[in-house]
Amino acid sequence: MGGKFDIIVAMRHVITAQQFDRALIEQLCSRASELEKLLDKKQLEKVELFKGRMLFSVFYEPSTRTRTSFSAAAQHLGMQVVSTENAREFSSAAKGETLEDTIKVLCQYRPDIIVLRHHETGAADLAASVSSVPIINAGDGAGQHPTQALLDLFTIKKEIGRLDNLKVVVGGDLAHGRTGRSLAHSLTKFKGNSLVFVAPPGLEINQDIKDYLSKIKVPYSETVDIPSALKDADVVYWTRVQKERFDSTKLKTTFVIGKKEVAAMKPSAIIMHPLPRVDEITVEVDKDPRAAYFRQAGNGMFMRMALIEWVLADKS
Amino acid sequence: MGGKFDIIVAMRHVITAQQFDRALIEQLCSRASELEKLLDKKQLEKVELFKGRMLFSVFYEPSTRTRTSFSAAAQHLGMQVVSTENAREFSSAAKGETLEDTIKVLCQYRPDIIVLRHHETGAADLAASVSSVPIINAGDGAGQHPTQALLDLFTIKKEIGRLDNLKVVVGGDLAHGRTGRSLAHSLTKFKGNSLVFVAPPGLEINQDIKDYLSKIKVPYSETVDIPSALKDADVVYWTRVQKERFDSTKLKTTFVIGKKEVAAMKPSAIIMHPLPRVDEITVEVDKDPRAAYFRQAGNGMFMRMALIEWVLADKS
Amino acid sequence: MGGKFDIIVAMRHVITAQQFDRALIEQLCSRASELEKLLDKKQLEKVELFKGRMLFSVFYEPSTRTRTSFSAAAQHLGMQVVSTENAREFSSAAKGETLEDTIKVLCQYRPDIIVLRHHETGAADLAASVSSVPIINAGDGAGQHPTQALLDLFTIKKEIGRLDNLKVVVGGDLAHGRTGRSLAHSLTKFKGNSLVFVAPPGLEINQDIKDYLSKIKVPYSETVDIPSALKDADVVYWTRVQKERFDSTKLKTTFVIGKKEVAAMKPSAIIMHPLPRVDEITVEVDKDPRAAYFRQAGNGMFMRMALIEWVLADKS
Repeated sequence: MGGKFDIIVAMRHVITAQQFDRALIEQLCSRASELEKLLDKKQLEKVELFKGRMLFSVFYEPSTRTRTSFSAAAQHLGMQVVSTENAREFSSAAKGETLEDTIKVLCQYRPDIIVLRHHETGAADLAASVSSVPIINAGDGAGQHPTQALLDLFTIKKEIGRLDNLKVVVGGDLAHGRTGRSLAHSLTKFKGNSLVFVAPPGLEINQDIKDYLSKIKVPYSETVDIPSALKDADVVYWTRVQKERFDSTKLKTTFVIGKKEVAAMKPSAIIMHPLPRVDEITVEVDKDPRAAYFRQAGNGMFMRMALIEWVLADKS
Repeated sequence: MGGKFDIIVAMRHVITAQQFDRALIEQLCSRASELEKLLDKKQLEKVELFKGRMLFSVFYEPSTRTRTSFSAAAQHLGMQVVSTENAREFSSAAKGETLEDTIKVLCQYRPDIIVLRHHETGAADLAASVSSVPIINAGDGAGQHPTQALLDLFTIKKEIGRLDNLKVVVGGDLAHGRTGRSLAHSLTKFKGNSLVFVAPPGLEINQDIKDYLSKIKVPYSETVDIPSALKDADVVYWTRVQKERFDSTKLKTTFVIGKKEVAAMKPSAIIMHPLPRVDEITVEVDKDPRAAYFRQAGNGMFMRMALIEWVLADKS
Repeated sequence: MGGKFDIIVAMRHVITAQQFDRALIEQLCSRASELEKLLDKKQLEKVELFKGRMLFSVFYEPSTRTRTSFSAAAQHLGMQVVSTENAREFSSAAKGETLEDTIKVLCQYRPDIIVLRHHETGAADLAASVSSVPIINAGDGAGQHPTQALLDLFTIKKEIGRLDNLKVVVGGDLAHGRTGRSLAHSLTKFKGNSLVFVAPPGLEINQDIKDYLSKIKVPYSETVDIPSALKDADVVYWTRVQKERFDSTKLKTTFVIGKKEVAAMKPSAIIMHPLPRVDEITVEVDKDPRAAYFRQAGNGMFMRMALIEWVLADKS
């Protein structure tokens, strides 16, 4: 598989979104697209698959969607999967074992990759420091969720055709939500992008991101005027606001993208959402070709397939 | 695989027992029998299997037996399985996502079939209405459990050799139990069958079924005289009565099939039970060749294999 | 596969450590070593694997480590795995079904092996009495855990090169811990071994084992002087003492193997531990080549692979 990726390192972990530069992101997007085409044509079996390779899916907190996506990705690639949903039993929570010891034991069972979801920030880094096999971070507490960040970029690339010169509206609870914040960060690796943040009062994006954007001269603005924000957006990245975080009933009903809002958007724009969606995008929007959020979920699996390939590429 | 089944439709879901007509039921029974022979001779690998095909097993409520049976069925057929036992985390119970959204997301991960178990009546129908892949209903609340209905018919066909001209005794808690009620319904598709319902007082079969049987002229009777009911039965379908539903201690001990009851049955008769069994059939009956309930459980897996083949037949 | 093992019986279950004699233990150790070499050279696919064979992993109580190890073992051997972590739903705990009925139903789904973990002593034996396929006991309550016993012997054989003429120190909570007690038993099958038991006051090994050792003339001693015990040991088998079982704070800190203790050990000695480890061996010991406990965990998987092969050998 080595030929598919140019950059070969001693061992490839997937820990943060920041570790991927522009070139590698584009390479991964391109490979994810190829894999999607091959799978949809039932031609995946014609490519070199990872028969006899094994992925351990180790989840310390439940995330059925991410776990299913990784399991399907690995199995579409011909890998075997051993899945643990209750990994806290392995751990300090149960008998006082450290994460490092758990990872060392798991490595002894000879997986080729460990996918780790953990409730503590920094867990993936810690795991990688003792692991004899590549770690893929499937989310570590309030920390990183790099495969989500990559699938968001992949979706924009696939739908719009470019990752530069975009006006991106990021909406929802930007104070607590990781995905919007992470996308803003990722987009700074590309050229000519500008950001508009739309958040209910009290749930605005943190100052540190804004300072960073100012420092690296990425234009941004903040507004609560949804129609004006959406009007000339290329990408609308909408996220869930937990009901208990709204301080007014009025907001609950107005912070919603519906048919009317979409009608005013550019024909070439797309609407993204990390899902699950509750009321913040109405169901009638789903039929609009600009509604990209379900395709986005699928892109997650293809990006995970590309990452598994990339991680295994230096070993074949 | 297309040659194995005659009827080709745009997309085949398995939602209700009623969707299967006599011809298709017999075709499925015949194929399930073939699959059993092939597996038992270790010749399954010689037939065309579903390598590279993937089944998602999505259970919103636990049913270890059904889940294991489907997983084994799919894997015996060479498929890959991604299994979710805690699907409620996906759903409204957790973050407010609708079942429709969940199914749409899962379809994006490119399964070939979704097996769905859900706590709400109508869930399988709802899922099928938005799914891009076939849905197999593995039980939806108080609603349907079509694979159970089909495995019961398959068991009768395999053990007795016919599905017509049978005297079938259905016993147990017929007011609450789904399986007895469902079998009564299924048997009306065939000719010359008659039914005897045996239920503790207060747990009799509902009037709607009796009205239906009268209307379509299927003879039935009701009794609490177990010996006389069993005497000339071809099939005794016995089910569990939950202890708290018995209103008398006496009944608890008399509503039981034991060695003596079986001794009075026809040599060619069979005893069925959807399992789990508690005390309502004594363990000493198990050795009698007429005790078909464990074979019946195995038939469930073979019928599920046949259904998976049928569902995939229009795509190969 | 028949050629790999000499002893062929009608059906091979793995129920107790005692069922394995010296010759078979050495055969299994030798095969486990071979399997490790083959897997690490990625040559497992060159040997005859168990494609199309299926293992059911049925756990009535959680044991993520053991379950993962068995799943990985079976899948490395090319088998399919159907895994149940919540098997109590099958059972009396849920609807009153007996373990015997559950096993009979599972056998109907045509697994080739059932791995059973159960909370009740004697469960594996009971399962084997009704099963039509081999049962591997993965721990039954306070009873047996034969694969742990075998992996411990395998580790000594692999690390030291022999299972005779060893001075073995067994330390920790020997009153409650199963592993230390079990190892002492296993070692009596070999020649010239002597045992030293090191336990906190009140947690000493039970009299029955000491009586047995006396009777069969295996020398043993008891001490709380860790340095003197370790000095000329070949094997130090250390286990966890649950904090609430220590009756003095002093002991908590002194019942620990650290760098200093290891420094005084023989260069050829090894330190074993069934894991999880908490504080009773310090992390700095891990780097010492004599620290064998993580390799020991891996040996567990290879021994399980050898046992699966052995169990299936009479059927191929």
